[in-house]
Amino acid sequence: MGEKLERLKEHIGKVTDLQFAAAVLSWDQEVYMPENAVGPRSAQLATLSSMAHELFTSDTTAAMLEAAEAEVAGMDYDSDDASQVRVTRRIFDERTKIPTELVERESKATSEAFVAWRKAREADTYATFQPHLSELVDIQVEKAGYLGYEDHPYDALLNQFETGMKTAQVEALFNDLRTGLVPLVHEIAAQPPVDDSFLEEGKYDQQRQWDFTLLLLHDMGYDFTRGRQDKAPHPFTIEFGNSDVRVTTRLFDNRPQSAIFSTVHEGGHALYEMGSPDRFERTALAGGSTLGLHESQSRLWENQVARSLPFWRYYFPILRAFFPAQLQGISLEQFHRAINKVEPSLIRVEADEVTYNLHIFVRFELEKDLITGALKVADVPDAWNAKYEEYLGITPPNNALGCLQDIHWSHGTIGYFPTYSLGNLMSAQIYDMAREQIPGLEKGYTRGEFAPLLSWLREHVHSHGSKFTAPELMQREFGQTISAQPLLTYLREKYTTLYGL
Amino acid sequence: MGEKLERLKEHIGKVTDLQFAAAVLSWDQEVYMPENAVGPRSAQLATLSSMAHELFTSDTTAAMLEAAEAEVAGMDYDSDDASQVRVTRRIFDERTKIPTELVERESKATSEAFVAWRKAREADTYATFQPHLSELVDIQVEKAGYLGYEDHPYDALLNQFETGMKTAQVEALFNDLRTGLVPLVHEIAAQPPVDDSFLEEGKYDQQRQWDFTLLLLHDMGYDFTRGRQDKAPHPFTIEFGNSDVRVTTRLFDNRPQSAIFSTVHEGGHALYEMGSPDRFERTALAGGSTLGLHESQSRLWENQVARSLPFWRYYFPILRAFFPAQLQGISLEQFHRAINKVEPSLIRVEADEVTYNLHIFVRFELEKDLITGALKVADVPDAWNAKYEEYLGITPPNNALGCLQDIHWSHGTIGYFPTYSLGNLMSAQIYDMAREQIPGLEKGYTRGEFAPLLSWLREHVHSHGSKFTAPELMQREFGQTISAQPLLTYLREKYTTLYGL
Repeated sequence: MGEKLERLKEHIGKVTDLQFAAAVLSWDQEVYMPENAVGPRSAQLATLSSMAHELFTSDTTAAMLEAAEAEVAGMDYDSDDASQVRVTRRIFDERTKIPTELVERESKATSEAFVAWRKAREADTYATFQPHLSELVDIQVEKAGYLGYEDHPYDALLNQFETGMKTAQVEALFNDLRTGLVPLVHEIAAQPPVDDSFLEEGKYDQQRQWDFTLLLLHDMGYDFTRGRQDKAPHPFTIEFGNSDVRVTTRLFDNRPQSAIFSTVHEGGHALYEMGSPDRFERTALAGGSTLGLHESQSRLWENQVARSLPFWRYYFPILRAFFPAQLQGISLEQFHRAINKVEPSLIRVEADEVTYNLHIFVRFELEKDLITGALKVADVPDAWNAKYEEYLGITPPNNALGCLQDIHWSHGTIGYFPTYSLGNLMSAQIYDMAREQIPGLEKGYTRGEFAPLLSWLREHVHSHGSKFTAPELMQREFGQTISAQPLLTYLREKYTTLYGL
Repeated sequence: MGEKLERLKEHIGKVTDLQFAAAVLSWDQEVYMPENAVGPRSAQLATLSSMAHELFTSDTTAAMLEAAEAEVAGMDYDSDDASQVRVTRRIFDERTKIPTELVERESKATSEAFVAWRKAREADTYATFQPHLSELVDIQVEKAGYLGYEDHPYDALLNQFETGMKTAQVEALFNDLRTGLVPLVHEIAAQPPVDDSFLEEGKYDQQRQWDFTLLLLHDMGYDFTRGRQDKAPHPFTIEFGNSDVRVTTRLFDNRPQSAIFSTVHEGGHALYEMGSPDRFERTALAGGSTLGLHESQSRLWENQVARSLPFWRYYFPILRAFFPAQLQGISLEQFHRAINKVEPSLIRVEADEVTYNLHIFVRFELEKDLITGALKVADVPDAWNAKYEEYLGITPPNNALGCLQDIHWSHGTIGYFPTYSLGNLMSAQIYDMAREQIPGLEKGYTRGEFAPLLSWLREHVHSHGSKFTAPELMQREFGQTISAQPLLTYLREKYTTLYGL
């Protein structure tokens, strides 16, 4: 490696240290911080963020970047060195394009909006959140202008979370997906409902649930010498480098599947971060790539693996040993049907894998229209409800269960939702390749063997760190563009069997 | 407040945020961090420390300090504003006096010495630690030169931990204390030994021990909305502002008094930090003052309060309810004698309150001689053993139980040990005043009432934050200089009764 690039990497290492330090403080805030420490913790986080931002967007970085660019000129696009410089440049440009004044205005507006959103959701009063959402939308439109775009202002926002994807591509993918999904949902709805009362109405000891989730993490290949699981009201994964990747889960007395799938989901994210190569540590290439790719990993483990029948052939007897009374008389097949119950519902985060993407379509379409001005902020509740009726056949009885349900908009986050569905699409594509290339893959699950899958994911996905965008990685590793068909085929096959369609 | 001082405080606030962030990372490292994250965590801590150091020792700080000094000129020494500037200046001068080159050399030498010390202690090979200790002593001598001193090079080192105290003062105090202590230890040694086998050889459920320590913290007035207790191999208190002050304790199956007194000790430190006024937050005046004053608070709660008979009149029945089988047939008086057993031993951290200071004298005397060159590093083991024989009447069978037992020297920390004894001295002085001024103080303990004591400590000690040095505070609040007599009187009275001398 050249001397200029080496210097740039050292410099970026310090920025990364500050960001990881902030992440440790955030983790602590979510899981262990005493309640009255919120104020000082905010000050500490603000200082860390602003110092990291100043250091990263400094003239020093600009000069080091230019020097490094000259040094790697002509190198292979895929090489580590060229990628270091390219990815650092991309983030640098993104951060420096937006004026500090707008960053500060956004930060202030979102702080206020978040508080207003919480109150509005509690009191079910959209009107009190509406002016905040208006301001946030205006700021996002302004931001899109600074970030720049060719075709659609939403491109600029989407690009922050899913580099290299355009609104038109997402529209086309979502159209394909919707065309296949809607009839499937209707066919399933025509079948007799699945009985999951032994889960929903059961009482499952939380300590035993916890132990079971630790077993799952262990078996997936999660390395407890480089991570830990804690409890949090809203499960998340967070990393401070590839040697400290932590997950959280939440436990209820009933619905043990909540903790189980939440742990496996976060475990999928964590394995991606743990698989990032050591040589990328403390650089722009460290850790998982786009949000869509990240979600492909969590969803693959959660759905394709952990909601499969072979998986439960191994784990259901163990779960029954943990909960003999609660699962007495329940067969493997009954259990498998219960954890795969499809039911159009109002709340995205509780949706099954068939209807989940319908929730995303609603948000994506509203966001696009808000950004172009085709939809007025005042009309969001009506538009939301109409789309729920259209896609899911149900209308929210109030806005708390409707357009106020998600935290994202209150954070000023627009352009994020589509990455969930892109992740679902890629999870199916990647899983198809895994099944094709790993002999006896699912047979292995029946023995609790996941090492072949993890090795394969390490090789084809994790080992690239964040070197490639999602389209780049899908092309290089699998010769594919992102498409809807594999997910549709997977869902159609699985639910045809499950529901006897 | 003047505008210049306001600007200085804002600037110091950022330094403080970085230091607190580092403290959160250290806390996490001690209690929850996965084992393989040590390397990256060190990098994160190094970046935070060096950025905090750079920011604090910058020309900006120097200029702001000068401007603020002009602004507060002529103000009362005790005023908040004059104290802000004075204390900030003192720390600034201390940090800027030592060249960066020496700081880095010290940092490198202590990292290596720490590793060497751990191995040497395990293998009981002083010879492998000796060259490291030599280097550390040389660095401390050099440092003392940069810091400057009038009478004794040890003054400069001591001053880092106990501002305003001189070696000669400490010598005089320790002479007084030793003169009174040695005969007391001999008289006690002539009595029949106390039976504490029901503690030392018992088996006490750790979860119940834990619950009991939480009860104690609660009753002392520890605010769980601004703190928490966790487990750690070496108990400590750490704060990230006065609204987030955390303690740790450690549990053994036997010796429940270990967790109990460790929790109360750390709780005493924590109450001091929690009592620092809000108006000092994120400034140089925030938090407890010198190490000696800090130790006076922890020791006062641990010894004068929690090893007293009135205290156990209230808690012994509760403890017996927690451990009915283990404490069956044990009377309050037997228990009280067992937790106050005096026995000359080799290990400082396990010493009782009578012999504890003898351990400190050994270290203080050796450190002084190392710094002046009167003692050669090669001769430390012999000198150590001779002093243990002289003061405690026992000779360590090896260096692991002798001069290799403490972590401090391996950290390059010389000048720290005396603060433990200074804390013990002040704890007795302060407690005498409390008993004089609070009617029915110890009677209250028999009902589990500690609020009067805490309020009084808040008013006379905690409310000053770190505005005053120990001699300043003792003079202002109690009209006293630090002296040995109150501790000697306290120990003589207590142990005369306990041992029937």
